[in-house]
Amino acid sequence: MRLGRVLYQRKVLSVLFSEDKVYPLVGSIFDEPKVNGKGISLLEVKILPPVTPSKIIALGLNYRDHARELNLPLPEEPLIFMKPPSAVIGPEENILLPPESKRVDYEAELAVVIGKKARRISPEEAMKVILGFTCFNDVTARDLQQKDAQWTRAKSFDTFAPIGPWVETELDLEKVRVRAYLNGELRQDSSLKELVFPVPQVVSFVSQIMTLYPGDVIATGTPPGIGPLSPGDVIDIEITGVGKLKNYVTKEI
Amino acid sequence: MRLGRVLYQRKVLSVLFSEDKVYPLVGSIFDEPKVNGKGISLLEVKILPPVTPSKIIALGLNYRDHARELNLPLPEEPLIFMKPPSAVIGPEENILLPPESKRVDYEAELAVVIGKKARRISPEEAMKVILGFTCFNDVTARDLQQKDAQWTRAKSFDTFAPIGPWVETELDLEKVRVRAYLNGELRQDSSLKELVFPVPQVVSFVSQIMTLYPGDVIATGTPPGIGPLSPGDVIDIEITGVGKLKNYVTKEI
Repeated sequence: MRLGRVLYQRKVLSVLFSEDKVYPLVGSIFDEPKVNGKGISLLEVKILPPVTPSKIIALGLNYRDHARELNLPLPEEPLIFMKPPSAVIGPEENILLPPESKRVDYEAELAVVIGKKARRISPEEAMKVILGFTCFNDVTARDLQQKDAQWTRAKSFDTFAPIGPWVETELDLEKVRVRAYLNGELRQDSSLKELVFPVPQVVSFVSQIMTLYPGDVIATGTPPGIGPLSPGDVIDIEITGVGKLKNYVTKEI
Repeated sequence: MRLGRVLYQRKVLSVLFSEDKVYPLVGSIFDEPKVNGKGISLLEVKILPPVTPSKIIALGLNYRDHARELNLPLPEEPLIFMKPPSAVIGPEENILLPPESKRVDYEAELAVVIGKKARRISPEEAMKVILGFTCFNDVTARDLQQKDAQWTRAKSFDTFAPIGPWVETELDLEKVRVRAYLNGELRQDSSLKELVFPVPQVVSFVSQIMTLYPGDVIATGTPPGIGPLSPGDVIDIEITGVGKLKNYVTKEI
Protein backbone atom coordinates (compact mmCIF):
# COMPACT_ATOMS: atom_id res chain seq x y z
CA MET A 1 0.00 0.00 0.00
CA ARG A 2 1.30 3.46 -0.89
CA LEU A 3 0.21 6.28 1.39
CA GLY A 4 1.01 9.98 1.23
CA ARG A 5 -0.24 13.49 0.76
CA VAL A 6 -1.18 15.58 -2.26
CA LEU A 7 -2.31 19.09 -3.03
CA TYR A 8 -5.61 19.08 -4.96
CA GLN A 9 -7.63 22.22 -5.66
CA ARG A 10 -5.64 24.08 -2.98
CA LYS A 11 -6.41 21.44 -0.34
CA VAL A 12 -3.99 19.03 1.31
CA LEU A 13 -5.37 15.48 1.09
CA SER A 14 -4.10 12.30 2.73
CA VAL A 15 -4.35 9.67 0.01
CA LEU A 16 -3.83 6.10 -1.10
CA PHE A 17 -1.83 5.94 -4.35
CA SER A 18 -2.78 3.49 -7.11
CA GLU A 19 -1.22 3.16 -10.58
CA ASP A 20 -2.49 6.48 -11.99
CA LYS A 21 -4.94 7.76 -9.36
CA VAL A 22 -5.04 8.86 -5.75
CA TYR A 23 -7.90 8.01 -3.39
CA PRO A 24 -8.61 10.44 -0.51
CA LEU A 25 -8.53 8.84 2.94
CA VAL A 26 -10.76 9.32 5.97
CA GLY A 27 -8.35 10.79 8.53
CA SER A 28 -4.58 10.73 8.16
CA ILE A 29 -2.22 8.08 6.79
CA PHE A 30 -1.66 6.97 10.41
CA ASP A 31 -5.28 5.93 10.87
CA GLU A 32 -6.73 2.62 9.69
CA PRO A 33 -6.79 3.25 5.90
CA LYS A 34 -10.34 3.87 4.65
CA VAL A 35 -10.96 5.38 1.23
CA ASN A 36 -13.45 8.25 1.05
CA GLY A 37 -14.70 9.18 -2.40
CA LYS A 38 -13.62 8.67 -5.98
CA GLY A 39 -10.12 8.46 -7.38
CA ILE A 40 -8.43 11.63 -8.65
CA SER A 41 -6.03 11.45 -11.58
CA LEU A 42 -2.35 11.83 -10.61
CA LEU A 43 -2.19 14.49 -13.36
CA GLU A 44 -4.50 16.74 -11.32
CA VAL A 45 -2.51 16.71 -8.07
CA LYS A 46 0.86 17.86 -6.79
CA ILE A 47 2.56 15.24 -4.63
CA LEU A 48 3.62 16.68 -1.25
CA PRO A 49 6.14 15.26 1.23
CA PRO A 50 4.30 12.20 2.62
CA VAL A 51 4.75 13.31 6.23
CA THR A 52 5.47 16.43 8.30
CA PRO A 53 7.95 14.96 10.81
CA SER A 54 8.31 16.34 14.34
CA LYS A 55 11.93 15.22 13.99
CA ILE A 56 14.28 13.70 11.43
CA ILE A 57 17.04 11.44 12.74
CA ALA A 58 19.76 10.36 10.36
CA LEU A 59 22.65 7.91 10.60
CA GLY A 60 26.27 8.41 9.66
CA LEU A 61 28.55 5.65 8.33
CA ASN A 62 25.98 2.85 8.36
CA TYR A 63 27.04 0.93 5.20
CA ARG A 64 29.94 -1.51 5.31
CA ASP A 65 30.81 -0.83 1.65
CA HIS A 66 30.79 2.94 2.29
CA ALA A 67 33.08 2.51 5.34
CA ARG A 68 35.42 0.32 3.25
CA GLU A 69 35.43 2.99 0.52
CA LEU A 70 36.45 5.63 3.08
CA ASN A 71 38.87 3.22 4.80
CA LEU A 72 37.15 3.90 8.14
CA PRO A 73 36.48 1.40 10.94
CA LEU A 74 32.84 0.36 11.43
CA PRO A 75 31.11 2.27 14.25
CA GLU A 76 30.41 0.29 17.41
CA GLU A 77 27.11 2.06 18.00
CA PRO A 78 24.81 3.91 15.57
CA LEU A 79 26.09 7.46 14.93
CA ILE A 80 23.04 9.71 14.90
CA PHE A 81 22.41 13.34 14.00
CA MET A 82 19.33 15.45 13.21
CA LYS A 83 17.99 17.49 10.33
CA PRO A 84 15.30 20.14 10.97
CA PRO A 85 11.71 19.81 9.64
CA SER A 86 12.25 23.17 7.88
CA ALA A 87 14.59 21.39 5.43
CA VAL A 88 11.87 19.05 4.09
CA ILE A 89 10.81 19.28 0.43
CA GLY A 90 8.75 16.91 -1.73
CA PRO A 91 9.25 15.32 -5.14
CA GLU A 92 9.96 17.56 -8.16
CA GLU A 93 10.97 20.47 -5.91
CA ASN A 94 14.23 22.35 -6.17
CA ILE A 95 17.26 21.65 -3.98
CA LEU A 96 18.78 25.10 -3.42
CA LEU A 97 22.57 25.39 -3.31
CA PRO A 98 23.35 28.02 -0.64
CA PRO A 99 26.11 30.58 -1.21
CA GLU A 100 27.78 29.44 2.05
CA SER A 101 28.93 26.13 0.53
CA LYS A 102 31.19 25.26 -2.42
CA ARG A 103 30.27 21.57 -2.39
CA VAL A 104 26.77 20.18 -1.77
CA ASP A 105 26.39 16.39 -2.10
CA TYR A 106 23.48 14.02 -2.70
CA GLU A 107 23.15 10.98 -0.39
CA ALA A 108 20.63 8.26 -1.30
CA GLU A 109 18.96 6.76 1.77
CA LEU A 110 16.14 4.48 2.82
CA ALA A 111 13.90 6.40 5.24
CA VAL A 112 11.84 4.72 7.93
CA VAL A 113 8.50 6.44 8.64
CA ILE A 114 7.22 5.91 12.19
CA GLY A 115 3.53 5.02 12.47
CA LYS A 116 3.02 4.69 16.24
CA LYS A 117 4.34 6.44 19.34
CA ALA A 118 7.31 4.44 20.60
CA ARG A 119 9.72 4.65 23.53
CA ARG A 120 12.38 2.12 24.53
CA ILE A 121 11.20 -0.62 22.23
CA SER A 122 13.28 -3.71 21.40
CA PRO A 123 14.48 -4.54 17.87
CA GLU A 124 11.82 -7.28 17.87
CA GLU A 125 9.07 -4.70 18.50
CA ALA A 126 10.45 -2.17 16.01
CA MET A 127 8.68 -3.36 12.85
CA LYS A 128 5.31 -2.92 14.60
CA VAL A 129 5.80 0.85 15.10
CA ILE A 130 6.97 1.45 11.51
CA LEU A 131 4.30 2.66 9.09
CA GLY A 132 6.51 2.06 6.06
CA PHE A 133 9.44 3.23 3.97
CA THR A 134 10.23 6.00 1.53
CA CYS A 135 13.13 7.58 -0.40
CA PHE A 136 15.29 10.21 1.27
CA ASN A 137 18.10 12.43 0.05
CA ASP A 138 20.38 13.46 2.93
CA VAL A 139 21.68 16.55 1.12
CA THR A 140 24.92 17.69 2.78
CA ALA A 141 27.22 20.73 2.45
CA ARG A 142 30.38 18.61 2.46
CA ASP A 143 32.81 21.49 2.97
CA LEU A 144 30.90 22.77 6.01
CA GLN A 145 30.62 19.22 7.39
CA GLN A 146 34.41 18.94 7.25
CA LYS A 147 34.91 22.42 8.71
CA ASP A 148 32.43 22.27 11.61
CA ALA A 149 32.83 19.98 14.62
CA GLN A 150 29.07 19.41 14.66
CA TRP A 151 27.25 18.50 11.42
CA THR A 152 24.14 20.55 12.14
CA ARG A 153 24.89 23.45 9.80
CA ALA A 154 26.07 21.21 6.93
CA LYS A 155 22.90 19.09 7.11
CA SER A 156 20.25 21.72 7.86
CA PHE A 157 19.87 24.25 5.04
CA ASP A 158 16.34 24.69 3.69
CA THR A 159 15.59 22.07 0.95
CA PHE A 160 18.30 19.69 2.27
CA ALA A 161 15.77 16.96 3.18
CA PRO A 162 13.92 15.78 0.04
CA ILE A 163 11.53 12.94 0.91
CA GLY A 164 8.91 10.88 -0.91
CA PRO A 165 7.07 10.32 -3.11
CA TRP A 166 4.96 8.12 -0.76
CA VAL A 167 5.22 5.67 2.11
CA GLU A 168 5.24 2.02 1.00
CA THR A 169 3.80 -0.04 3.84
CA GLU A 170 4.86 -3.44 2.46
CA LEU A 171 8.49 -3.75 1.56
CA ASP A 172 10.76 -6.80 1.57
CA LEU A 173 13.89 -5.25 3.10
CA GLU A 174 15.94 -8.29 2.07
CA LYS A 175 15.53 -7.38 -1.59
CA VAL A 176 15.80 -3.59 -1.47
CA ARG A 177 18.45 -1.70 -3.41
CA VAL A 178 19.26 1.93 -2.58
CA ARG A 179 20.23 3.94 -5.65
CA ALA A 180 21.02 7.46 -6.80
CA TYR A 181 20.93 8.61 -10.43
CA LEU A 182 22.59 11.92 -11.27
CA ASN A 183 21.21 13.24 -14.56
CA GLY A 184 20.01 9.72 -15.31
CA GLU A 185 23.39 8.08 -14.62
CA LEU A 186 23.61 5.47 -11.84
CA ARG A 187 25.94 6.74 -9.07
CA GLN A 188 24.91 4.83 -5.93
CA ASP A 189 23.67 1.24 -5.89
CA SER A 190 23.83 -0.90 -2.77
CA SER A 191 21.85 -3.38 -0.74
CA LEU A 192 20.45 -3.17 2.78
CA LYS A 193 22.55 -6.28 3.45
CA GLU A 194 25.48 -3.82 3.69
CA LEU A 195 23.88 -1.98 6.64
CA VAL A 196 26.06 -2.04 9.75
CA PHE A 197 22.97 -1.56 11.92
CA PRO A 198 19.84 -3.02 10.29
CA VAL A 199 16.49 -1.21 10.41
CA PRO A 200 15.05 -2.85 13.59
CA GLN A 201 18.26 -2.17 15.54
CA VAL A 202 18.34 1.45 14.37
CA VAL A 203 14.72 2.15 15.36
CA SER A 204 15.23 0.45 18.73
CA PHE A 205 18.44 2.45 19.37
CA VAL A 206 16.82 5.81 18.62
CA SER A 207 13.79 4.92 20.76
CA GLN A 208 16.08 4.38 23.78
CA ILE A 209 16.95 8.08 23.55
CA MET A 210 13.79 9.81 22.44
CA THR A 211 10.09 9.11 22.10
CA LEU A 212 9.21 8.56 18.45
CA TYR A 213 5.94 9.97 17.11
CA PRO A 214 3.84 9.15 14.02
CA GLY A 215 5.45 10.85 11.02
CA ASP A 216 8.94 10.95 12.49
CA VAL A 217 11.59 9.94 9.99
CA ILE A 218 14.77 7.93 10.49
CA ALA A 219 17.15 8.03 7.51
CA THR A 220 19.31 4.92 7.65
CA GLY A 221 22.59 6.13 6.11
CA THR A 222 24.06 6.23 2.62
CA PRO A 223 26.02 3.70 0.54
CA PRO A 224 29.19 4.47 -1.52
CA GLY A 225 29.10 6.79 -4.53
CA ILE A 226 28.11 10.14 -3.03
CA GLY A 227 29.06 13.18 -5.07
CA PRO A 228 28.47 16.87 -5.69
CA LEU A 229 25.40 18.59 -7.15
CA SER A 230 25.57 21.45 -9.66
CA PRO A 231 22.94 23.93 -10.85
CA GLY A 232 20.81 22.31 -13.56
CA ASP A 233 21.31 18.75 -12.24
CA VAL A 234 18.47 16.28 -11.78
CA ILE A 235 18.93 13.86 -8.88
CA ASP A 236 16.79 10.74 -8.46
CA ILE A 237 16.85 8.61 -5.33
CA GLU A 238 15.44 5.15 -5.89
CA ILE A 239 14.42 2.59 -3.31
CA THR A 240 13.44 -0.51 -5.25
CA GLY A 241 9.93 -1.56 -4.29
CA VAL A 242 9.07 2.02 -3.29
CA GLY A 243 9.81 4.20 -6.32
CA LYS A 244 11.84 7.23 -7.27
CA LEU A 245 12.23 10.64 -5.66
CA LYS A 246 13.18 13.24 -8.28
CA ASN A 247 14.53 16.70 -7.46
CA TYR A 248 16.03 19.53 -9.46
CA VAL A 249 19.07 21.53 -8.41
CA THR A 250 19.43 25.31 -8.63
CA LYS A 251 21.45 28.03 -6.98
CA GLU A 252 19.73 29.79 -4.12
CA ILE A 253 19.25 33.33 -5.36
CA MET B 1 4.30 41.11 29.10
CA ARG B 2 4.46 37.43 30.08
CA LEU B 3 2.87 34.99 27.64
CA GLY B 4 2.60 31.22 27.84
CA ARG B 5 0.39 28.19 28.12
CA VAL B 6 -1.41 26.51 30.99
CA LEU B 7 -3.56 23.46 31.58
CA TYR B 8 -6.90 24.42 33.14
CA GLN B 9 -9.79 21.99 33.59
CA ARG B 10 -8.12 19.60 31.12
CA LYS B 11 -7.85 22.31 28.46
CA VAL B 12 -4.69 23.93 27.10
CA LEU B 13 -5.02 27.72 27.23
CA SER B 14 -2.77 30.40 25.79
CA VAL B 15 -2.55 33.03 28.48
CA LEU B 16 -1.17 36.33 29.69
CA PHE B 17 0.44 35.97 33.13
CA SER B 18 -0.08 38.62 35.83
CA GLU B 19 1.12 38.56 39.44
CA ASP B 20 -1.15 35.75 40.66
CA LYS B 21 -3.55 35.18 37.78
CA VAL B 22 -3.58 34.09 34.15
CA TYR B 23 -5.82 35.68 31.52
CA PRO B 24 -6.89 33.50 28.55
CA LEU B 25 -6.00 34.95 25.15
CA VAL B 26 -7.94 35.07 21.89
CA GLY B 27 -5.77 32.94 19.57
CA SER B 28 -2.21 31.95 20.33
CA ILE B 29 0.63 33.84 21.98
CA PHE B 30 1.87 34.70 18.46
CA ASP B 31 -1.26 36.73 17.66
CA GLU B 32 -1.85 40.33 18.72
CA PRO B 33 -2.47 39.81 22.48
CA LYS B 34 -6.17 40.21 23.33
CA VAL B 35 -7.52 38.99 26.64
CA ASN B 36 -10.71 36.93 26.52
CA GLY B 37 -12.53 36.43 29.81
CA LYS B 38 -11.75 36.68 33.48
CA GLY B 39 -8.49 35.92 35.24
CA ILE B 40 -7.90 32.43 36.64
CA SER B 41 -5.85 31.98 39.81
CA LEU B 42 -2.38 30.55 39.22
CA LEU B 43 -3.26 28.01 41.94
CA GLU B 44 -5.87 26.47 39.65
CA VAL B 45 -3.63 25.88 36.63
CA LYS B 46 -0.59 23.82 35.68
CA ILE B 47 2.00 25.82 33.74
CA LEU B 48 2.96 24.08 30.47
CA PRO B 49 6.03 24.70 28.30
CA PRO B 50 5.28 28.14 26.78
CA VAL B 51 5.77 26.90 23.20
CA THR B 52 5.82 23.66 21.19
CA PRO B 53 8.84 24.35 18.98
CA SER B 54 9.19 22.87 15.48
CA LYS B 55 12.91 22.93 16.24
CA ILE B 56 15.32 23.78 19.05
CA ILE B 57 18.70 25.17 18.06
CA ALA B 58 21.36 25.48 20.73
CA LEU B 59 24.84 27.02 20.85
CA GLY B 60 28.06 25.55 22.15
CA LEU B 61 30.86 27.55 23.76
CA ASN B 62 29.18 30.96 23.48
CA TYR B 63 30.39 32.55 26.77
CA ARG B 64 33.84 34.10 27.01
CA ASP B 65 34.10 33.26 30.72
CA HIS B 66 33.12 29.62 30.03
CA ALA B 67 35.73 29.35 27.24
CA ARG B 68 38.34 30.82 29.62
CA GLU B 69 37.30 28.30 32.30
CA LEU B 70 37.83 25.43 29.81
CA ASN B 71 41.00 27.05 28.41
CA LEU B 72 39.55 26.82 24.90
CA PRO B 73 39.89 29.37 22.07
CA LEU B 74 36.77 31.39 21.22
CA PRO B 75 34.86 30.00 18.20
CA GLU B 76 35.10 32.07 15.00
CA GLU B 77 31.50 31.27 14.05
CA PRO B 78 28.55 30.17 16.20
CA LEU B 79 28.69 26.43 16.93
CA ILE B 80 25.14 25.11 16.59
CA PHE B 81 23.44 21.82 17.36
CA MET B 82 19.84 20.66 17.79
CA LYS B 83 17.68 19.11 20.48
CA PRO B 84 14.43 17.32 19.52
CA PRO B 85 10.96 18.65 20.47
CA SER B 86 10.34 15.31 22.22
CA ALA B 87 12.81 16.40 24.93
CA VAL B 88 10.72 19.43 26.00
CA ILE B 89 9.27 19.57 29.53
CA GLY B 90 7.73 22.43 31.49
CA PRO B 91 8.30 23.89 34.96
CA GLU B 92 8.05 21.58 38.00
CA GLU B 93 8.41 18.49 35.83
CA ASN B 94 10.99 15.74 36.41
CA ILE B 95 14.30 15.55 34.57
CA LEU B 96 14.83 11.80 34.11
CA LEU B 97 18.38 10.47 34.41
CA PRO B 98 18.68 7.68 31.80
CA PRO B 99 20.54 4.45 32.61
CA GLU B 100 22.79 5.03 29.55
CA SER B 101 24.65 7.92 31.25
CA LYS B 102 26.74 8.16 34.42
CA ARG B 103 26.89 11.97 34.33
CA VAL B 104 24.00 14.26 33.39
CA ASP B 105 24.68 18.00 33.74
CA TYR B 106 22.50 21.12 34.05
CA GLU B 107 23.29 24.08 31.79
CA ALA B 108 21.52 27.42 32.46
CA GLU B 109 20.69 29.28 29.25
CA LEU B 110 18.74 32.24 27.94
CA ALA B 111 16.33 30.99 25.27
CA VAL B 112 15.12 33.15 22.40
CA VAL B 113 11.54 32.41 21.31
CA ILE B 114 10.83 33.22 17.67
CA GLY B 115 7.59 35.12 17.00
CA LYS B 116 7.58 35.51 13.21
CA LYS B 117 8.69 33.40 10.24
CA ALA B 118 12.22 34.48 9.33
CA ARG B 119 14.77 33.55 6.66
CA ARG B 120 18.13 35.21 5.98
CA ILE B 121 17.54 38.22 8.19
CA SER B 122 20.28 40.62 9.28
CA PRO B 123 21.28 41.15 12.93
CA GLU B 124 19.51 44.52 12.68
CA GLU B 125 16.23 42.79 11.73
CA ALA B 126 16.59 40.02 14.32
CA MET B 127 14.88 41.71 17.27
CA LYS B 128 11.72 42.19 15.18
CA VAL B 129 11.21 38.44 14.69
CA ILE B 130 11.77 37.60 18.37
CA LEU B 131 8.63 37.21 20.48
CA GLY B 132 10.57 37.21 23.73
CA PHE B 133 12.82 35.30 26.11
CA THR B 134 12.56 32.46 28.58
CA CYS B 135 14.67 30.17 30.77
CA PHE B 136 16.17 27.01 29.30
CA ASN B 137 18.10 24.10 30.78
CA ASP B 138 20.28 22.43 28.14
CA VAL B 139 20.48 19.13 30.02
CA THR B 140 23.42 17.09 28.72
CA ALA B 141 24.73 13.55 29.23
CA ARG B 142 28.34 14.69 29.59
CA ASP B 143 29.93 11.24 29.29
CA LEU B 144 28.06 10.50 26.05
CA GLN B 145 28.92 13.96 24.71
CA GLN B 146 32.60 13.18 25.26
CA LYS B 147 32.28 9.67 23.80
CA ASP B 148 30.26 10.47 20.67
CA ALA B 149 31.59 12.52 17.74
CA GLN B 150 28.15 14.11 17.31
CA TRP B 151 26.34 15.54 20.35
CA THR B 152 22.88 14.44 19.26
CA ARG B 153 22.52 11.47 21.63
CA ALA B 154 23.97 13.35 24.64
CA LYS B 155 21.55 16.26 24.17
CA SER B 156 18.37 14.47 23.11
CA PHE B 157 17.02 12.19 25.83
CA ASP B 158 13.38 12.77 26.78
CA THR B 159 13.12 15.52 29.48
CA PHE B 160 16.50 17.04 28.48
CA ALA B 161 14.94 20.35 27.36
CA PRO B 162 13.16 22.04 30.30
CA ILE B 163 11.78 25.43 29.22
CA GLY B 164 9.67 28.18 30.79
CA PRO B 165 7.83 29.27 32.80
CA TRP B 166 6.68 31.92 30.27
CA VAL B 167 7.93 34.16 27.47
CA GLU B 168 8.87 37.66 28.63
CA THR B 169 8.35 40.01 25.66
CA GLU B 170 10.16 42.98 27.21
CA LEU B 171 13.63 42.31 28.51
CA ASP B 172 16.64 44.58 28.79
CA LEU B 173 19.34 42.20 27.56
CA GLU B 174 22.05 44.57 28.86
CA LYS B 175 21.02 43.87 32.44
CA VAL B 176 20.23 40.16 32.28
CA ARG B 177 22.02 37.63 34.46
CA VAL B 178 21.87 33.91 33.68
CA ARG B 179 21.91 31.75 36.79
CA ALA B 180 21.57 28.16 37.96
CA TYR B 181 20.77 27.13 41.53
CA LEU B 182 21.35 23.51 42.51
CA ASN B 183 19.31 22.67 45.62
CA GLY B 184 19.06 26.41 46.28
CA GLU B 185 22.82 27.03 45.98
CA LEU B 186 24.05 29.43 43.27
CA ARG B 187 26.21 27.51 40.77
CA GLN B 188 26.11 29.58 37.57
CA ASP B 189 25.92 33.38 37.43
CA SER B 190 27.00 35.34 34.39
CA SER B 191 26.01 38.24 32.19
CA LEU B 192 25.00 38.38 28.54
CA LYS B 193 27.95 40.75 28.14
CA GLU B 194 30.09 37.60 28.19
CA LEU B 195 28.35 36.23 25.06
CA VAL B 196 30.80 35.62 22.20
CA PHE B 197 27.93 36.02 19.69
CA PRO B 198 25.17 38.30 21.02
CA VAL B 199 21.48 37.50 20.52
CA PRO B 200 20.91 39.43 17.23
CA GLN B 201 23.99 37.85 15.61
CA VAL B 202 22.93 34.37 16.73
CA VAL B 203 19.38 34.69 15.36
CA SER B 204 20.69 36.13 12.09
CA PHE B 205 23.27 33.30 11.76
CA VAL B 206 20.70 30.54 12.29
CA SER B 207 18.28 32.21 9.84
CA GLN B 208 20.95 32.04 7.08
CA ILE B 209 20.73 28.24 7.35
CA MET B 210 17.10 27.49 8.12
CA THR B 211 13.75 29.20 8.05
CA LEU B 212 12.66 30.03 11.60
CA TYR B 213 9.00 29.62 12.57
CA PRO B 214 6.92 31.04 15.43
CA GLY B 215 7.63 29.00 18.55
CA ASP B 216 11.09 27.90 17.46
CA VAL B 217 13.65 28.15 20.25
CA ILE B 218 17.29 29.20 20.12
CA ALA B 219 19.22 28.49 23.33
CA THR B 220 22.17 30.85 23.47
CA GLY B 221 24.79 28.81 25.32
CA THR B 222 25.79 28.33 28.94
CA PRO B 223 28.15 30.26 31.26
CA PRO B 224 30.74 28.67 33.63
CA GLY B 225 29.68 26.51 36.57
CA ILE B 226 27.96 23.54 34.93
CA GLY B 227 27.81 20.41 37.00
CA PRO B 228 26.14 17.03 37.51
CA LEU B 229 22.59 16.26 38.61
CA SER B 230 21.67 13.50 41.07
CA PRO B 231 18.36 11.87 41.95
CA GLY B 232 16.48 14.07 44.44
CA ASP B 233 18.10 17.31 43.24
CA VAL B 234 16.13 20.48 42.53
CA ILE B 235 17.56 22.62 39.73
CA ASP B 236 16.44 26.22 39.12
CA ILE B 237 17.41 28.20 36.04
CA GLU B 238 16.98 31.94 36.52
CA ILE B 239 16.99 34.63 33.87
CA THR B 240 16.71 37.91 35.74
CA GLY B 241 13.76 39.90 34.43
CA VAL B 242 12.04 36.68 33.30
CA GLY B 243 11.83 34.42 36.35
CA LYS B 244 12.82 30.95 37.47
CA LEU B 245 12.40 27.55 35.86
CA LYS B 246 12.32 24.82 38.52
CA ASN B 247 12.70 21.10 37.78
CA TYR B 248 13.14 18.00 39.90
CA VAL B 249 15.59 15.23 39.16
CA THR B 250 14.85 11.51 39.35
CA LYS B 251 16.17 8.28 37.89
CA GLU B 252 14.35 7.04 34.84
CA ILE B 253 12.76 3.76 35.95
